Amino acid sequence: MIYADNAATTKMSESAIHTMTTLLNESWGNPSSLYLHGQKAKEVLEKAREEIAAVIGAQPREITFTSGGSEADNQAILSAAESGRLKGKRHIISTAFEHHAVLHTLNKLKKQGFDITLLDVHENGIILPSEVKEAIREDTCLVTIMYANNEIGTIQPIREIGAICRERNVLFHTDAVQAIGHIPVNVGEDNIDMLSSSAHKFHGPKGVGFLYSRKGIRLSNLIEGGAQERGKRAGTENVPGIGAMAAALKEANANMAENAAHMIQMRDKLIEGLRQIPHSALNGDEHQRLPGNVNFCFEGIEGESLLLLLDDKGIQASSGSACTSGSLDPSHVLLAIGRVHDVAHGSLRLSIGEDITQAEVDEIIRSVTEVVTYLRSFSPIWRDLMAGKKEFIL
Amino acid sequence: MIYADNAATTKMSESAIHTMTTLLNESWGNPSSLYLHGQKAKEVLEKAREEIAAVIGAQPREITFTSGGSEADNQAILSAAESGRLKGKRHIISTAFEHHAVLHTLNKLKKQGFDITLLDVHENGIILPSEVKEAIREDTCLVTIMYANNEIGTIQPIREIGAICRERNVLFHTDAVQAIGHIPVNVGEDNIDMLSSSAHKFHGPKGVGFLYSRKGIRLSNLIEGGAQERGKRAGTENVPGIGAMAAALKEANANMAENAAHMIQMRDKLIEGLRQIPHSALNGDEHQRLPGNVNFCFEGIEGESLLLLLDDKGIQASSGSACTSGSLDPSHVLLAIGRVHDVAHGSLRLSIGEDITQAEVDEIIRSVTEVVTYLRSFSPIWRDLMAGKKEFIL
Repeated sequence: MIYADNAATTKMSESAIHTMTTLLNESWGNPSSLYLHGQKAKEVLEKAREEIAAVIGAQPREITFTSGGSEADNQAILSAAESGRLKGKRHIISTAFEHHAVLHTLNKLKKQGFDITLLDVHENGIILPSEVKEAIREDTCLVTIMYANNEIGTIQPIREIGAICRERNVLFHTDAVQAIGHIPVNVGEDNIDMLSSSAHKFHGPKGVGFLYSRKGIRLSNLIEGGAQERGKRAGTENVPGIGAMAAALKEANANMAENAAHMIQMRDKLIEGLRQIPHSALNGDEHQRLPGNVNFCFEGIEGESLLLLLDDKGIQASSGSACTSGSLDPSHVLLAIGRVHDVAHGSLRLSIGEDITQAEVDEIIRSVTEVVTYLRSFSPIWRDLMAGKKEFIL
Repeated sequence: MIYADNAATTKMSESAIHTMTTLLNESWGNPSSLYLHGQKAKEVLEKAREEIAAVIGAQPREITFTSGGSEADNQAILSAAESGRLKGKRHIISTAFEHHAVLHTLNKLKKQGFDITLLDVHENGIILPSEVKEAIREDTCLVTIMYANNEIGTIQPIREIGAICRERNVLFHTDAVQAIGHIPVNVGEDNIDMLSSSAHKFHGPKGVGFLYSRKGIRLSNLIEGGAQERGKRAGTENVPGIGAMAAALKEANANMAENAAHMIQMRDKLIEGLRQIPHSALNGDEHQRLPGNVNFCFEGIEGESLLLLLDDKGIQASSGSACTSGSLDPSHVLLAIGRVHDVAHGSLRLSIGEDITQAEVDEIIRSVTEVVTYLRSFSPIWRDLMAGKKEFIL
């Protein structure tokens, strides 16, 4: 079995599982309790906060623990919108290929009278900072642009965008769910005001994430209730999950350079190999992409059949975001980079892990080539293309 | 060590920890993924949904998994308010001693123009159904009343209240965080439309809970994004946590009658013993209360000192809700049942577990008696009371 869907979720690392089970057994007290057992749970919580803050160059008090990336995205955007509303600023800039946690929250705000500008992501899947600059208006209260795209893996010029926002005094949020633990992120150097992250994308547990918000930024509660997280996120803290998230992030960060170097090598071999398949195309910029991300379109086939046959061969991959699988609509990300409907349907995302081997890369290339050839052999679209009744796009 | 703060949080059961660690290792796939590994995670998720639904007499599709009780409370109330708003109904009925997850959400709605009626909880901490009936108006869109209070443990006449709401065609939500797994709850028989629950209160993991909402009730998203949970709660599902929650709930439910019988016996001995302390009083009805809940006020002392000295003696308890510990304000619950400020400050909540022994009960009585006597020996208020400069209240 080759697991090549790490962008959907990752297997927890051994150290994260060890931390979690230890904490489940030993640190199950309520961190809000005054007695020693509760206070020890609080120590675990605050140590995790310090460790996570240190990895991204933040202060511990700038970290709010959430139930995951989606919650963090929702809270960040709604908080910025609330601050904007109070100042009469109701314009938000984002991009067409954000995660739905961002796009659907923006839709909610649109219904409340906010004006949303979605920037073009261009053919290579990379935002131009100059276009962010041009889009900023007097009434812009927020720019929210993801650090790296979850489907095509393209890494955005976050530092430049952040600098522009800071210069114009506009809040800048980034959904860094795919980036944290995989590529270096430093909220100070990158000029980031708010950042969302999810533990299960970097070998931590599911159901936990965090929101970074720079000191002085006023957060609105998504979840009202108890006074946890400085009163900004109610609910008894998931101490074992949070501790395991910190363990996973520390580990990912310590091994990042080495892992990335290996993955980039494997990724590029994968890209090279899959390119040999006729009428195929890599989606997103070839170089400015996550170390583990490969995303291709193959003309004349359906992505879903491709996935199911690859699964039979022991290769687990996806056509795009797991969050929207089961939907018949083509990926909004692929449409945003200009792929037409038919082509976007024949997509394959391979998000490889740190432990991928050369032999596995070869096996993936062989299997995908076989399956694409097989599927094309009885595809009516492919027949029409070959007969010249339809024009090849790729 | 005697842990008597199970209302704040519980230790995970061995079977829940076992389920969780097994799932962390084996079922870490993304349930939205099409390949077999993802679909197996989805099976775990749906099996958990069926098991949880069965325990409370619901249909599986009526269960939405959340990050805990606070999130479920927020989503339930905001959903009902949204439905009300669309019909021009902006009146909500609740009580003065709800959990802050409810009260603060109601405050948010008040600022948006909703009219909130908080019912009197009376001296015994029990709502009168007749007063619910009287409070319902033409524009009432929601009644939200907790199943059992988290501080004083009083169990509300939920079935009668639910019947009144159903008759008047008003949505009825109950925060059942303290009830589920401890006393029988059946959403059908109890006429409940929406119900919130949290796993870590019944020996499940932290960071996971569920919202029951009767078929046909329209939920609004608190967290927007992916299509998980029928599109009503975005974010990759916490499969290990959810599976462990189901394991814990099944276990709690199977042993409920036996556990409750033992705990009621121990609870009543505790009440009897602590009553021997002069100028003390039980908070909340003596009989209509959770099997594990004992809550006392002792005149002339401070609750916080009491807790710290009990901790030294190996007894872990609280003065009230863990969510508000650290606050200098007296408990809003104790004020709601008519305790005056000074008396409310001297409160002690003992929430015992299923494994409490007679010897431990004796030890608690002995220790509390000693500590109260000791604290009174140098309390200026107690001196004034004894000197007749102040009148005893209890």
